[in-house]
Amino acid sequence: MEEKVISSLPLKPEIIIDAMGGDFAPDEIIKGAIQGRADFDVEITLAGNKARIVASAERCGLSLEGIRIADAIQDVSMDDAPSDVIKHKKNSSIYIGTELASKNRNSAFLSAGNTGAAMACSLINMRKIEGILRPAIATVIPLGSKRFILLDVGANADIKPEYLKQFGIMGSIYCKEIFKTTKPRVALLNVGSEEKKGNEVSKESHKLLKNANINFIGNVEGRDIFNDAADVVVCDGFVGNILLKAFEGMAGFFFKEIKEVFYSNMMTKLSALIVRNNLRVMKQKFDYEEYGGALLLGIDGITIISHGSSKAKAIRNAIRLGAGSLKGGIVSKIKEEINSLNNNLES
Amino acid sequence: MEEKVISSLPLKPEIIIDAMGGDFAPDEIIKGAIQGRADFDVEITLAGNKARIVASAERCGLSLEGIRIADAIQDVSMDDAPSDVIKHKKNSSIYIGTELASKNRNSAFLSAGNTGAAMACSLINMRKIEGILRPAIATVIPLGSKRFILLDVGANADIKPEYLKQFGIMGSIYCKEIFKTTKPRVALLNVGSEEKKGNEVSKESHKLLKNANINFIGNVEGRDIFNDAADVVVCDGFVGNILLKAFEGMAGFFFKEIKEVFYSNMMTKLSALIVRNNLRVMKQKFDYEEYGGALLLGIDGITIISHGSSKAKAIRNAIRLGAGSLKGGIVSKIKEEINSLNNNLES
Repeated sequence: MEEKVISSLPLKPEIIIDAMGGDFAPDEIIKGAIQGRADFDVEITLAGNKARIVASAERCGLSLEGIRIADAIQDVSMDDAPSDVIKHKKNSSIYIGTELASKNRNSAFLSAGNTGAAMACSLINMRKIEGILRPAIATVIPLGSKRFILLDVGANADIKPEYLKQFGIMGSIYCKEIFKTTKPRVALLNVGSEEKKGNEVSKESHKLLKNANINFIGNVEGRDIFNDAADVVVCDGFVGNILLKAFEGMAGFFFKEIKEVFYSNMMTKLSALIVRNNLRVMKQKFDYEEYGGALLLGIDGITIISHGSSKAKAIRNAIRLGAGSLKGGIVSKIKEEINSLNNNLES
Repeated sequence: MEEKVISSLPLKPEIIIDAMGGDFAPDEIIKGAIQGRADFDVEITLAGNKARIVASAERCGLSLEGIRIADAIQDVSMDDAPSDVIKHKKNSSIYIGTELASKNRNSAFLSAGNTGAAMACSLINMRKIEGILRPAIATVIPLGSKRFILLDVGANADIKPEYLKQFGIMGSIYCKEIFKTTKPRVALLNVGSEEKKGNEVSKESHKLLKNANINFIGNVEGRDIFNDAADVVVCDGFVGNILLKAFEGMAGFFFKEIKEVFYSNMMTKLSALIVRNNLRVMKQKFDYEEYGGALLLGIDGITIISHGSSKAKAIRNAIRLGAGSLKGGIVSKIKEEINSLNNNLES
């Protein structure tokens, strides 16, 4: 089967989906895959236990016609150490899926499963782009009708200024290709707007970002980013991960409180009926499922990491992101930029 | 005047307030000071330009009866470097105020002005508690009817595990004395709940916190903290500052979006009338003014840092925090704890 994939370069972008990963796998993953295939012009390959995929489709009344299956008999749990998956689970959906994706320039891999394993298998099978120091996970934070890209949100807990410079370059390319922003405003997340604010790493990073071939607008504070201050916000994976989860937690908390406001008495319940639709639209604006997943940038291929609690809608939208990333040629554009950067350094 | 303060140890707690600091100084600061004096059993000293304080009180129709004024002729701007204030602005409200507070065990200092200057002057005049490695700024994040203490939110951009251990101890004492929590749940902000998650500093900090004489419950993620997972959340000042400001930014953004929902059309505007009161109550639950300010922990005295945009209500509530901190004996309790910690290390 692998042979076939290698030789027959599909004309359409191919999205290889980890059918076994995530809280609602395989049912919701398969549903999302079918929806994505119907809505976007892509080929779909489901990586996972074939018997369970077929059983799930039957149970849910879904047709797998036109969808390829890459059988993977091993399971990866959320607790599996990435290093163990690489060594001992080469027949898992994540390993096989990333391996398949590495063999075709027009294929992307997508998983809502073990993030560490997806990252490790992507690195092993697709490899890092030459010249890239560290890959980064780039996610989209919805801001009502706007949004910003936040990276890194978890690939690197410890950081060097040189990494952050590359994150700025990669984030800028992502923003250009996916959101068609002509000159993305790239900012460094920091504790003050002045150049000399922050910890040692951020002071040095500021200098490097200023000299990168991007539209670097300087430091932004935690407050500014929710006020459309930048299109791309760069930070280390420790801060980014905490911030991303805090955003989720706070949004959840906020909507819980709003619900309580409306459930106070008969009159407020009546009021809830009136604003129900508008409120639903507002809630959607904060919904990570709208963007489907985060992009692992810096590897020689496309890997999308979806939220563990992804349902069909998130998977469908992650497919859109995968297709867009392939069509936009994000990987080759990062390669060009890093190449010219390193050539300039040498000259 | 200083002589008088030294010799006549007031029976009531004394709050020395920087009348010149903050966006709405001196009017709102003086209003808040008068409200606080009326509501809590405290003496008030206003540190600042006497002529301007008197003029402001006259303009606002406020009586300064019973309130002391410590005249301070120099101004500190938000841009003044803390080191310059220490060296060249010894006649500023912040310098004089911290100096006065240092001379009386029952006095606290409060400023909504230049945070760096307030910190630096507190360190110079009140000095660090012996054995404390670094002071930390501890703030309260409101969570509806609940809340948690977050520290450090800005005193230390670069951090060592030993600092975080002490932050846990100081935060626990703060929570006990101010919120009367019997056994505060202290947690380390991290990217995963497992002990070995995070960056190098957090892994080491986890070990140290586990062995501290506090109710350490382990790591919490950005999501958990909005779900009442801990009473005290410990982090470095870089992450804490970004998170605190992100919290403010997100809350502002949410309420802006909610407003739009209600302003959509006639019917939704009608609905807004119905839930208006409940919504206002909800908004109050997110209001930092309810807690008035952040406590600078680790110095041999009480300094409260209020938000730059503090109005009278925030200053009034900061006075409550100052009085509570003095009455609770937070400083002597931190001293005891750090002493016994260091004695244990030596024995």
